Amino acid sequence: MVRKLEGAERAEALASLPDWTHEPKRDGITRSFKFADFTRAFGFMTSVAILAEKADHHPEWSNVYNRVDILLTTHDADGLSQRDIDLARAIDALF
Amino acid sequence: MVRKLEGAERAEALASLPDWTHEPKRDGITRSFKFADFTRAFGFMTSVAILAEKADHHPEWSNVYNRVDILLTTHDADGLSQRDIDLARAIDALF
Repeated sequence: MVRKLEGAERAEALASLPDWTHEPKRDGITRSFKFADFTRAFGFMTSVAILAEKADHHPEWSNVYNRVDILLTTHDADGLSQRDIDLARAIDALF
Repeated sequence: MVRKLEGAERAEALASLPDWTHEPKRDGITRSFKFADFTRAFGFMTSVAILAEKADHHPEWSNVYNRVDILLTTHDADGLSQRDIDLARAIDALF
């Protein structure tokens, strides 16, 4: 079972991801990415998709032309978990 | 310049796509697709992405695990155009 992040652990995790914004309604984190064009945006999505499938943790995301918006939250934890933080770090490293 | 579909032409085009729903706010068409899992959903998105890039007409879309939601509308026409109808047909054929 995945545990929801709480207290200091949560605060530290969020502070370690300055490009991500906490989304209180879903208790997740979001980040928007912009690329030169659709092909680059979708290429990025493909890389993230492979990471996500490997981690068995999937983003909620949308794409409009050169923009990709990602929300990470953990359904099983009913909010933000370490799995979201790990995937966000991996996505940042990719970007 | 791409023309917005009007009148009988529009009605016929919409009638020819029974699985798509007209979205009045954006004057676009939407369809939701479900798959067995994330890998299948993203595989479908990859095929659509290649079609879209080839047609130089891109969807607004989102993915949550095994679900893909697509909205087609034509920014340059300020609403529904033949390009949306053609892309919707190509997506239906793929699915």
